[in-house]
Amino acid sequence: MILTVTPNIALDITYRVDQLTPGSSHRVRRVEERAGGKGVNVAGVLRALGHDTVVLGFVGGATAGTVTSDLARGGLAHELIAVEGPTRRSIAVVDSSNGEATLFNEAGPRVPATSWDDLETRLAARLPRATALVVSGSLPPGSDDAACARLVRLAAAHRVTVLVDTVGPALLQAAAAGADIVKPNAGELLDTIGVSDVAAAATELRRRGAKAVVVSLGAAGMAAFTPEGSWRAAPPTRLAGNPTGSGDAAAAALIAGAVAGAPWPDRLRDAVALSAAAVLQPTAGIVDLRDYHRFAPQILVEERHALGLDR
Amino acid sequence: MILTVTPNIALDITYRVDQLTPGSSHRVRRVEERAGGKGVNVAGVLRALGHDTVVLGFVGGATAGTVTSDLARGGLAHELIAVEGPTRRSIAVVDSSNGEATLFNEAGPRVPATSWDDLETRLAARLPRATALVVSGSLPPGSDDAACARLVRLAAAHRVTVLVDTVGPALLQAAAAGADIVKPNAGELLDTIGVSDVAAAATELRRRGAKAVVVSLGAAGMAAFTPEGSWRAAPPTRLAGNPTGSGDAAAAALIAGAVAGAPWPDRLRDAVALSAAAVLQPTAGIVDLRDYHRFAPQILVEERHALGLDR
Repeated sequence: MILTVTPNIALDITYRVDQLTPGSSHRVRRVEERAGGKGVNVAGVLRALGHDTVVLGFVGGATAGTVTSDLARGGLAHELIAVEGPTRRSIAVVDSSNGEATLFNEAGPRVPATSWDDLETRLAARLPRATALVVSGSLPPGSDDAACARLVRLAAAHRVTVLVDTVGPALLQAAAAGADIVKPNAGELLDTIGVSDVAAAATELRRRGAKAVVVSLGAAGMAAFTPEGSWRAAPPTRLAGNPTGSGDAAAAALIAGAVAGAPWPDRLRDAVALSAAAVLQPTAGIVDLRDYHRFAPQILVEERHALGLDR
Repeated sequence: MILTVTPNIALDITYRVDQLTPGSSHRVRRVEERAGGKGVNVAGVLRALGHDTVVLGFVGGATAGTVTSDLARGGLAHELIAVEGPTRRSIAVVDSSNGEATLFNEAGPRVPATSWDDLETRLAARLPRATALVVSGSLPPGSDDAACARLVRLAAAHRVTVLVDTVGPALLQAAAAGADIVKPNAGELLDTIGVSDVAAAATELRRRGAKAVVVSLGAAGMAAFTPEGSWRAAPPTRLAGNPTGSGDAAAAALIAGAVAGAPWPDRLRDAVALSAAAVLQPTAGIVDLRDYHRFAPQILVEERHALGLDR
C-alpha cells in the first residue's frame, strides 16, 4: 500500500476550441474533466504498475464531487478531507488548429491548520500498513511551509519511505526533515536553492538533510544524487508529446523502486522509461506499460564521480 | 409576477489574469462565479425594477448547486428542473493589462423532451398567477426548435403576455405561434430571416405572426415595429462599458412596459435607458436605477413611417 498526498488537488478541465483568438468568443467543442494534481497522477501510474494506493488530500466546493467520482471511476481509492473553499480548477484550452494548450490555473482553497491536523491523524492511522508515502505538488493557500516536513517526520516515525516532490520553502523544510527522496525538476531546484548548478543545488539539499535528490532534466533525462553514488540517465530519443505528468510517472517509478529495494541505477532507468511512456499519453497519470517495457532497455545510465552534472 | 424561462442557464465564471498569452500557463488572480443566461439577467433587472419574478429552466451536474445558490443569494426565486448533463460554464478570461475579455462557452446539457414537458407542466401551474412570461436565450442541445413556440401558445392560452428573445428556427416558430413581442438583435434577426434590411426582416417576422418586433441596434439604440406604429430610439451618447446583458435589460424594460400598458414610445425609451444603464455595470443582470433615471429623459424616440430604419 503506497499512500500519496496531494495538498492541492485539482479538477483538470480540457476545452477543445477551433482556434484561440484573444478578445473573441469561443464555442467549446469538447469538454473533458478529470481529477488532477501531482499526487493523483502518481497514484494513477502506481496503479498501472500493480500497486495498491490511497489518494489523500483536501477537497471542497462544487468541484469536489466531480473529483471524487472521477477517482472512483479510475479505481483510485481515496480519503479526502473536506475544506470550505472550492477545489481548484485547472483549465487547458487546446487550440485544434495547432494543438497548442493554454492553461488557466486557479489558486485552490485555503486549507486551515486544523485540516492539516486532520490529514496527519488519518495518515497516522494508515502508515502502519503502508510501504511508502509520496507527497506531491505545491501547497494550497494558507498552508504552513512546514506542513510537508511534518508529514515526512510522521512517515519516518513509522519507518515508511517518503518521497517529496514540491518547491520552495516547503521543499527545503522537507529536506531538513530528512526526506528519503526529494524530486524537484531542475528549474524548481535552482530557483529554490538560488544557484545555477544542478549538482551543487542537489548537494546543498542533501547537506540540509535529504537522503537522496533526484532531479528531472526535462528531455535530457534525470540525475540522482544518493548515499550510494550519483547517476544520470537519458532517454533514447527526444519524444514529442505531452510533458504534463511525466515527472509524476518518474516519482511513481522512484517510490516503487524504493519499496522493492532496487539498486539506484535501476530506479533511475525505470523513472526515465516511465516518464517517456507518460509523454506519449495525452492525459497525465496514464502510462501504457508496453511503452515502458520498450523504452527501459534503451535507457543509458551513467555513474558520475564529479560535479558539473548539469552540463 | 413575471416568469422568465432560460432554456440554457449558465454558470458565468470570470477569471482575471495578468496578461493572456496563448500557449502559456496563467495564474488566475481572481475568480467570480454567478448564475447566468439571458433569462436570469432579465429577472435580475426586473427585480431591480421592483417586480416579483420566478426564474425557470434546467440545471444539472456539479455546476447546478453553484447556480441555485447564486440565485438564492441574489434573491431570485427559481424553479429549476434537474437534467442529467451538467449546466454549461461560460468562462470569461479578463486580461488585466488591457481589460479585454476572451470567452469560452460550453454547449450545455442535452435537454430531453420529457424535461421540456415537465417545464410546461410547471409553467401551466404558475401562469394563472403570472402577468407576463419572458423566454430568453438559445435552446440547449437536443431541444426541439418548436419548444419556444409551445411556451408561447401556453402563455396565450392563459392570456399572459409573452416576450421571446432567441434566434434561428426557434425565433421563427415563436413568431409563428403569435408571440406578443420578439426581441432579436439586428445581426441575429438578419441571419435568421436571410435579408440585409432590419425593417424588412422585422416586417417578415410580423407577417409570420409576431405581434411586435423590437430590434437591438447596438450602440445605435433600438427599433420597434408594432401594431400601433414603428419607432426608433437612440441613446444620448455612445457609452463605453460591458455590452453583455444590455439586451436583457432592454427585454426587462419591454416586458415591464407591456405589463403596465405603457405606450410603445415609452417602452422603447425605457428599454434604451435601462440598456445604457446595464452597459455601465461590469456584471450582466445588474443595473443602477439612478443611471436609468438619468438617461431616460435624454433618449430620443422618433416615429418612423417608412422602411429603411436600418440606416
